[in-house]
Amino acid sequence: MSHFPFKVLAVDGAARAGVLHTHHGEVPTPAFMPVGTYGAVKTLTPGELADAGTRILLSNTYHLYLRPGAELVGRLVGLHAVMNWDRPILTDSGGFQIMSLASLARVDDDGVTFRSHLDGSGHRFTPELAVRVQELLGTDIAMCLDELVSPRSDKPTALKAVERTLAWAHRCLRARSSEKMALFGIVQGGVFPDLRAHCAQVLGSAPFDGFAMGGLALGEEPGETWQAVETSLLNLPEARPRYLMGMGTPSDLLDGIQRGVDLFDCVMPTRNARNGTLFTRAGKISIRSASMKEDKSPPDPECSCFTCRNFSRAYLRHLFLTREMLGFRLSTIHNLSYYHQLVSGAREAVFSGSFASYRKEVEGLWVDQESLL
Amino acid sequence: MSHFPFKVLAVDGAARAGVLHTHHGEVPTPAFMPVGTYGAVKTLTPGELADAGTRILLSNTYHLYLRPGAELVGRLVGLHAVMNWDRPILTDSGGFQIMSLASLARVDDDGVTFRSHLDGSGHRFTPELAVRVQELLGTDIAMCLDELVSPRSDKPTALKAVERTLAWAHRCLRARSSEKMALFGIVQGGVFPDLRAHCAQVLGSAPFDGFAMGGLALGEEPGETWQAVETSLLNLPEARPRYLMGMGTPSDLLDGIQRGVDLFDCVMPTRNARNGTLFTRAGKISIRSASMKEDKSPPDPECSCFTCRNFSRAYLRHLFLTREMLGFRLSTIHNLSYYHQLVSGAREAVFSGSFASYRKEVEGLWVDQESLL
Repeated sequence: MSHFPFKVLAVDGAARAGVLHTHHGEVPTPAFMPVGTYGAVKTLTPGELADAGTRILLSNTYHLYLRPGAELVGRLVGLHAVMNWDRPILTDSGGFQIMSLASLARVDDDGVTFRSHLDGSGHRFTPELAVRVQELLGTDIAMCLDELVSPRSDKPTALKAVERTLAWAHRCLRARSSEKMALFGIVQGGVFPDLRAHCAQVLGSAPFDGFAMGGLALGEEPGETWQAVETSLLNLPEARPRYLMGMGTPSDLLDGIQRGVDLFDCVMPTRNARNGTLFTRAGKISIRSASMKEDKSPPDPECSCFTCRNFSRAYLRHLFLTREMLGFRLSTIHNLSYYHQLVSGAREAVFSGSFASYRKEVEGLWVDQESLL
Repeated sequence: MSHFPFKVLAVDGAARAGVLHTHHGEVPTPAFMPVGTYGAVKTLTPGELADAGTRILLSNTYHLYLRPGAELVGRLVGLHAVMNWDRPILTDSGGFQIMSLASLARVDDDGVTFRSHLDGSGHRFTPELAVRVQELLGTDIAMCLDELVSPRSDKPTALKAVERTLAWAHRCLRARSSEKMALFGIVQGGVFPDLRAHCAQVLGSAPFDGFAMGGLALGEEPGETWQAVETSLLNLPEARPRYLMGMGTPSDLLDGIQRGVDLFDCVMPTRNARNGTLFTRAGKISIRSASMKEDKSPPDPECSCFTCRNFSRAYLRHLFLTREMLGFRLSTIHNLSYYHQLVSGAREAVFSGSFASYRKEVEGLWVDQESLL
């Protein structure tokens, strides 16, 4: 039995509303996790995150391993203490950044050797080290080290990566020493439904506390993405949480929730905020546009976030045009609030059995139907 | 009689503790004003400013005139509404930035013609326009347009600038139409005591709501600076507030308060914060330094600001090394809190007649006696 019980409290079709227990408290699901790469969700304090509705955040093992270093975070009594955040933290395993950011990554059956994207220094990650680093960080939910392949890979390549991912997942399970840390297996398999199904089945028969779906939205067709998600979900145990890694347009969230996804993360709300793109109930707006120049209304008139309660589109536009960091902050607060409101609205709809109409209502308000895809 | 009464509540030598009334409430003096160039003190919200102890802030007329434009701020019901700050705002006249930032500034008896440092567009400021722009901004305390000369200027040049500054000051008085806006005259005169005295006497005999000392700390010797301040103060009415423009090391604040200055502004605490230099009771520290790497203590163990209550030196160092904007924010909050605590401590000391010992105690804690000069 898992030390980290997950309870599905309601279903509506395949959509689920639940609660995930962690060493740092409960997370109502579905939940969206903002990305705090270096132990900070860019521009925000922990209090602002909580006010925006964040119940769990994601941080990046690869980045923290390089700066400030996992041993140092450990001596500083873990990431929660360092960043003064007392709610749950999920960390990825570092595998994705090693493959996408680091130089000269070479995978073998035992692990992966790579060079830092910062200074070219040489490093090696194994499944055991990925677990050890996440334990030093003090994460609540750790991810297994996995091997990621391009969606353009052929089937033998994808199969080989699945076999390594499965072998590494079992090594991670054995390596875990902290009872405070949940461990999720990651379903790989590229765009091949039978590989996804196989990977999900094997992982599902092992005592992971939850499961992630990785290697998606990397250039394959949306139809392929969602087929891979559906196949993975169908072959994973229903009683444990399912996390769709790195995908997070508003449409993605609704698509995922409808299919039974419980956890999401994405840089989209925070990165877009810093680019001046704000999510509103009527669709995306560009806060820099000339039409905002004299607009005294808040970014989203229906939103009750700190930014919308206190500041106008005209002021935000001015802050962006003068490159004032306050503009990045206020936009980040709003976008995260939008995401959390979207997801908590979906959760309530699942409880009342009205997810389909909730989704229709939300999408019906998007002025440009493409705008939040 | 001024609509904006200033009351000296206590004196200790030449140092004074008072209260300045404005259309947006009272300001206990001496007071330090953070600089919010474009209608935002960089990185902070109005609530954070207030929490740090800010009772009045300064914003820059030249910058706001160019972006977003004074007419637009006027249509948005003034700077207080735009930035959601309900405490007093003081604006400079634009004269200093026109001379230091803008291109091709040419002064004549009627005003100054210049090109924007942003796009080279041509503009002209007169005393009347400087007042009009500040009324559109809705400032609580406006500054007269003045002519600034280099401290290296010869006496005839400095005298000519004083005469223009005085003529323009009287034009500003006549041009003011808002009863909600106080207007301060500015003492110029370079490093020539007799010119400073003359300028102060002429301004002091006119119904200005207060007085500023400008054109200082621009490269002259510190002895010359303080002689100019002392001569100005000796020749200004004691019953009205006196503001030392743009000077603000911690030592400057103590030096100024000791001589009877009531208001200060400076970019030092906010700019230094963004460079990773923090002010503490023991002197300045560089938060990037290797010695902070594992330091779990707050930036200043004696400080009760938001940053010091919640975050360690080690975390701030990490945020700076990873260029996280949160580091700039947290450092800005701390530095402003330090400044406001320093000044409010001086105010209390004046009330208890112990300013000299307060100053000695504060400076005695500075590990490097030069470090906060």
